[in-house]
Amino acid sequence: MQTERHAQILEERYGQGHEPKGIIWNAHIEHMMNHRSVRRFLPDGLPDGALETMVAAAQSASSSSNLHMWSVIAVTDPEVKSELYRVSGWGNPFIEDAPAFLLWVADQSRNNAISKAAGGSAIVHDYLDALVMATIDTALAAQNAALAAESLGLGVVYIGGMRNKSQEVADLLDLPGYSYVTFGMVVGYPAPEAQGRLRPRPSQDVVLHRDRYEADRAERISHYEGPFKRFRQDLGMKEKSFAEAVGYSANDLLYMDGRENLRATVEARGFKLR
Amino acid sequence: MQTERHAQILEERYGQGHEPKGIIWNAHIEHMMNHRSVRRFLPDGLPDGALETMVAAAQSASSSSNLHMWSVIAVTDPEVKSELYRVSGWGNPFIEDAPAFLLWVADQSRNNAISKAAGGSAIVHDYLDALVMATIDTALAAQNAALAAESLGLGVVYIGGMRNKSQEVADLLDLPGYSYVTFGMVVGYPAPEAQGRLRPRPSQDVVLHRDRYEADRAERISHYEGPFKRFRQDLGMKEKSFAEAVGYSANDLLYMDGRENLRATVEARGFKLR
Repeated sequence: MQTERHAQILEERYGQGHEPKGIIWNAHIEHMMNHRSVRRFLPDGLPDGALETMVAAAQSASSSSNLHMWSVIAVTDPEVKSELYRVSGWGNPFIEDAPAFLLWVADQSRNNAISKAAGGSAIVHDYLDALVMATIDTALAAQNAALAAESLGLGVVYIGGMRNKSQEVADLLDLPGYSYVTFGMVVGYPAPEAQGRLRPRPSQDVVLHRDRYEADRAERISHYEGPFKRFRQDLGMKEKSFAEAVGYSANDLLYMDGRENLRATVEARGFKLR
Repeated sequence: MQTERHAQILEERYGQGHEPKGIIWNAHIEHMMNHRSVRRFLPDGLPDGALETMVAAAQSASSSSNLHMWSVIAVTDPEVKSELYRVSGWGNPFIEDAPAFLLWVADQSRNNAISKAAGGSAIVHDYLDALVMATIDTALAAQNAALAAESLGLGVVYIGGMRNKSQEVADLLDLPGYSYVTFGMVVGYPAPEAQGRLRPRPSQDVVLHRDRYEADRAERISHYEGPFKRFRQDLGMKEKSFAEAVGYSANDLLYMDGRENLRATVEARGFKLR
């Protein structure tokens, strides 16, 4: 049954008139659809067991060939957090404010070591897929952890900017070869003012295709300018269209802020990307 | 409060004596920890709204810079499913049996088209990070969709093997440039016999690090041979140690079954991976 709250979630998420029809509601669906990234945190520490609960949820996600190709570093030491904030490159002061900063590591180092200790070549790790597969598994695990944190009343935000200075981040965290930090995740109790609207998404016909990819999706997204603009206005953000945001992210190396070195970094760290 | 069922979940997931302490239980945590991949499906179709609900959950996951760099193709046409099964390369007959096969596409094509239509260079898409970022966002979205499906009584299994023949898959699905199929996801009602034990994971001290990466994790995983072996015995699977499974996956190009061509494919599809 769709309640008023459900209708409100759909309107915030898609914009009036663009809501999908026939959504089946239950507590899990509502929980996921209520996600919003939190960027203001209370200084309170995580409750006992929260980290272990997040990791248990993360480990319960699917793992390619059951190979467990990820690790997570939970940084609570203020000095390490400050150093990571310094190299994060995007002005995310909440990295220092929040009690915990989790670094999600796409990690082939264990399996590489196990294989080589038994006399193997680990040649598979020389291929691009070794990076892709570990990156996918890291993201699946992290998403479960994010949902677990949110179910405990905590808030999270992913920090892709940790890839901007990936070699510095690896050095700071003593990462072994055949691994890299895929993204960070700030975790803590949301400050009361952090509870805002849900961020709108393009309508489902932009991303959902039937049987084959249908070619006109770049046009279909034009409706999204409306919800995108209204969200920014409501939050007092600088006026910008979605097309402008996309253009900046695609055309301007300033957007990368060091991320253009990711290939050099992962190659230096052992991935040959053949 | 930890119930008997919770204790059983932890024992199945970690093996007796390796359970994490202090897990905080609620319905969301229990839901995620109960995940098991399903490989036998009933022929029944998905309930009305299930697909839209999965996509709504997927779109509610975080999106890097709000750029929406993924698409999903829901294949229900038996002919397309059969063709995908034929190229999947791993003998996954349930791709044909199940009512729906979702192909999760890391998709820079929309943003590339939007940027170029406005006269931009889209030079950022020439870098490795354009592939990594879209891959991460695709995985975050897909994991929400998987949990949504499971909350509706459906079962799922990820099919990383869709990357084995990535160019053939792209051709079959009419994928545009600047996109590739990251993985597939089979969805349907689990056959009754598909309900088995949870697959065990290494203990948390293998994957969870504090403040910095601690270097001895390849050794710490040795305890995992016990739960790994018992799980395979209980399911009547061929005797194999975890170290052997890792060695095969790392040392033998047979394991890749075409995935060694992933770089050539994504480059041919526009990603320059600079």
